[in-house]
Amino acid sequence: MTQPFGDRLAQAVSDKKSVAVIGIDPRLESLPPELAELPAQEALTIFGCGIIDAVCDLVPAVKPNIAFFEAYGLPGLEAYNSICAHAKREKLLVIGDVKRGDIGSTAAAYAEGLLSPGGIGPHDCLTLNPYLGSDSLNPFLETGLPQGQGFFILVKTSNPSSAELQNLELKTGGTLAEAAARLVESLGKNNIGQSGLSSLGAVVGATHREELARYRELMPHAPFLIPGYGAQGGTAADVCDAFRADGSGALVNASRSVIFAWKKNPGDWQEAARNETLRMNADLLSALRAAGKWKSPVSS
Amino acid sequence: MTQPFGDRLAQAVSDKKSVAVIGIDPRLESLPPELAELPAQEALTIFGCGIIDAVCDLVPAVKPNIAFFEAYGLPGLEAYNSICAHAKREKLLVIGDVKRGDIGSTAAAYAEGLLSPGGIGPHDCLTLNPYLGSDSLNPFLETGLPQGQGFFILVKTSNPSSAELQNLELKTGGTLAEAAARLVESLGKNNIGQSGLSSLGAVVGATHREELARYRELMPHAPFLIPGYGAQGGTAADVCDAFRADGSGALVNASRSVIFAWKKNPGDWQEAARNETLRMNADLLSALRAAGKWKSPVSS
Repeated sequence: MTQPFGDRLAQAVSDKKSVAVIGIDPRLESLPPELAELPAQEALTIFGCGIIDAVCDLVPAVKPNIAFFEAYGLPGLEAYNSICAHAKREKLLVIGDVKRGDIGSTAAAYAEGLLSPGGIGPHDCLTLNPYLGSDSLNPFLETGLPQGQGFFILVKTSNPSSAELQNLELKTGGTLAEAAARLVESLGKNNIGQSGLSSLGAVVGATHREELARYRELMPHAPFLIPGYGAQGGTAADVCDAFRADGSGALVNASRSVIFAWKKNPGDWQEAARNETLRMNADLLSALRAAGKWKSPVSS
Repeated sequence: MTQPFGDRLAQAVSDKKSVAVIGIDPRLESLPPELAELPAQEALTIFGCGIIDAVCDLVPAVKPNIAFFEAYGLPGLEAYNSICAHAKREKLLVIGDVKRGDIGSTAAAYAEGLLSPGGIGPHDCLTLNPYLGSDSLNPFLETGLPQGQGFFILVKTSNPSSAELQNLELKTGGTLAEAAARLVESLGKNNIGQSGLSSLGAVVGATHREELARYRELMPHAPFLIPGYGAQGGTAADVCDAFRADGSGALVNASRSVIFAWKKNPGDWQEAARNETLRMNADLLSALRAAGKWKSPVSS
């Protein structure tokens, strides 16, 4: 039987001794000079695969955001597919940051395209938007869960205006984001693996530290995907409350601070990305150990 | 200066004497037998362009949903681009039903890919998801409005579980969907054309008739995109409250009931789609006239 995504994630974190995920969000104008003159598809592919080569032994997962590839049309999406395939070859979990959300029959079409061979990807996991409710999510679960794929549902995002709707207070108590959190926990409760983690996770922004412990309480079984570390301002200490008592259950994403590290530390761009990933790993594990949340002794 | 989308839409409705939009949501398994054996890209392109040829003189706009093309990977997206380009050649407004929503810098990347030459499309208009708030929408507006492009923001969708989050009642009164409606009206208020319509519209499900008048009150300037007519169960009478007093301001979408009309009325699939579109146009105008909301005398 296929291992459920929650367990695959827990295993990958344990194997790599890392809770970091590297966001692959390239822009042509920010690529190293030696790639800047190449056609978009080639430049994006070389850069994305090069980042994967630089970090694949250090992290459990990568998260390409499809927007940065769609920006270059179909050649960009060809590069996206090449990068996802390369990450799979390197045994990384591929989190497709696609934030899809549509009604039932349309969600089923997206699920076919994003979770099946011959479509866009390959993906181990997708990000989804909950605004349309459970019947926009269920077709993804029905397709992906039996294949060992997982999902991170947007609960609380890290952008300044996330408060406009997500922080609205409800008549019955709590906020919209907390209602979304309850929906995630409820939909995931039948898919909890031996690790205690569900295959249905949540995106919870690290720029809202005070809220992380509350979301963990609302979603005891959900893996968290935490954006906002690095370029977006969150620190390692900020994110500890998102982890479960045993140190499992969350991935911390950094994109620009890793993939564009060569801009701050001139030299080889792959080496710069690797060094920043090593620094991030050490930073996160140190904070987790300080919080009493990392069981295995790790030499840093 | 480029005409704003709200005015382009009002003009197209007036020119075509139709408030219908045809959703192009093909599935290979539902295509006419003569297309069923072709490769996906060719079958989708012939079918989508054939639907456009059948209805292009009857309606102001078409709405291809990208999910049904992404389901077939990059060849599917090639077909999507071909269909959008064909609709533009036939002077139809192209509403790209993509329901994107991501944080600022990522939204800017999506906007580049979906609103600029050489990307995915071409589109006159996109559907967007509001869960991440205004800074996930503004990059689209900044790119698209100066180019005469418009947007329909998901406010209240037509699927059964839309109530799970969208109908949640807020402490300060009203529902989440009503808060989204206020956000749409507020973001659109600086982009109201001579027609009185903003370039920022709202998706409001027709299966919730009792709510349509309330949403019109909350968004007096927003064009409405109303799914749920036909296969999803809404009737022409249901949607009249969504229109402004002068009969402007809303588009009613039908997808399966038009594009798969040949299944109920065997024979030429294009003729079946055309006949169903004629029937839908007559049905909608008759209901609007009965509600006193269609100014120009139209022979039906």
